[in-house]
Amino acid sequence: MDSWVDGQPADVLSLKDRGLAYGDGLFETIAVRDGVPALLARHLVRLTKGCQRLSINLDHGAMVTELTDYAAQLDNGVLKLVVTRGDSQRGYAFDPAAQARRILSGNPPAAYPATHAEQGIRLFPCTTRLSTQPLLAGLKHLNRLEQVLARAEWQDTEHAEGLMLDQEGRVVEGVFSNLFLVRDGVLTTAQLDRCGVAGVMREEILFQAESLGIPTQITDISLGQLQQADEVFVCNSVYGIWPVRAYAAFSWPVGPLTRKLQSIARALLDA
Amino acid sequence: MDSWVDGQPADVLSLKDRGLAYGDGLFETIAVRDGVPALLARHLVRLTKGCQRLSINLDHGAMVTELTDYAAQLDNGVLKLVVTRGDSQRGYAFDPAAQARRILSGNPPAAYPATHAEQGIRLFPCTTRLSTQPLLAGLKHLNRLEQVLARAEWQDTEHAEGLMLDQEGRVVEGVFSNLFLVRDGVLTTAQLDRCGVAGVMREEILFQAESLGIPTQITDISLGQLQQADEVFVCNSVYGIWPVRAYAAFSWPVGPLTRKLQSIARALLDA
Repeated sequence: MDSWVDGQPADVLSLKDRGLAYGDGLFETIAVRDGVPALLARHLVRLTKGCQRLSINLDHGAMVTELTDYAAQLDNGVLKLVVTRGDSQRGYAFDPAAQARRILSGNPPAAYPATHAEQGIRLFPCTTRLSTQPLLAGLKHLNRLEQVLARAEWQDTEHAEGLMLDQEGRVVEGVFSNLFLVRDGVLTTAQLDRCGVAGVMREEILFQAESLGIPTQITDISLGQLQQADEVFVCNSVYGIWPVRAYAAFSWPVGPLTRKLQSIARALLDA
Repeated sequence: MDSWVDGQPADVLSLKDRGLAYGDGLFETIAVRDGVPALLARHLVRLTKGCQRLSINLDHGAMVTELTDYAAQLDNGVLKLVVTRGDSQRGYAFDPAAQARRILSGNPPAAYPATHAEQGIRLFPCTTRLSTQPLLAGLKHLNRLEQVLARAEWQDTEHAEGLMLDQEGRVVEGVFSNLFLVRDGVLTTAQLDRCGVAGVMREEILFQAESLGIPTQITDISLGQLQQADEVFVCNSVYGIWPVRAYAAFSWPVGPLTRKLQSIARALLDA
């Protein structure tokens, strides 16, 4: 279906848009099933946090209305919302009163091989490392060259995702996923206060685990700790959970906690 | 005058452009005087290096033709060239054969107060720090949220520029300028292999200084070294050189080497 800009059908954007000029904006990628955006509240919370951090004035009411209307028309697929600071003249300075631009576009449902979820995947060892920037860490902003470079490191279909480390070699996340490991019954994921994207499915999984009484931990993760994990999986808000079977010379079985959380994630996305 | 996209007048861009989606591209900001783009060769060198580093396929011949035609029509002003990886579907992966999109836009000549160049400026002490990313360091890419955040730190007109440090507190550059200091006759600027933009005017100043037999040094710079400098100035390819008189509690006179290089820079931009 057509894209919408500020609620109107459009397939183009002003050349003065700061999203183009500087990546000055945010985005959300949302699974839509039977016209309903999955995990909508969590997407809105993250977007709101991003707008606050970047001082972007978003008409949240209009955005939510457009997003739910668009999802209803899309019916089944993947909705992408891009929020930019709107137009400006040349130069980094911006008008603090400027209203954000809202861009919605729709894609067909993601078509990943079913084996990713069923049998698990292999992670490519990306050499592109995430830089440290506490002011932007956690946000799904439009400055994504690191992910573009990392994703370009492999073309084979052996690797369904790539693992990204930070500048100090800590395990952070996938190129388009967050990563969890299980060790002695504790579910662990990287803290994202220096780099990384705080994924909506990551938040949901932490919430679900806590509801189930599963101990969770948000901390720094070393490659050694990754190697010693009992189970490893990656997640995002489009595909849910993929078990991770291998990374470089490391390998893991598909474990029971991964399967339990995977079925919960699937139910949330298929709701 | 109208902007051009791939050589055709246009004021809009496809919503599928990866420049918008990920900041997946590069830009150059070029002073144009009497229809001639200043320091063109250096701009082209940097752009070419950026395309190589990001694996962007740019039709350099078409780009140079369009750029010189556009500059001729602009006559006097500031030309901005944006090169993006072009359109793609959702997802970080890109087609290695995709042709880059070329976007040209024109602005009136920059209208900075003459006092900036004549009497010198005060630098705002930005708290936003530059992140370390060797894969992107030096490039003028479209991921510029750090500069957007840094520029938003001051609104007063007391500060004409802001100084940005790296994560370790080293002195790197201005928000839209490079920085030089002079100490005991040696001209020093920060090395930019971890972060920062390798400005075209910075390159030109290093070249001119070497031609004049002035010793130059590209190295790490501490705040202590900045404080002890005999002269400090900032530069870019639009305004040339502004002497720096103050930064936080530090202050400097406008020195003779700054004035000599300033007049050379002015001649290059006014040529």
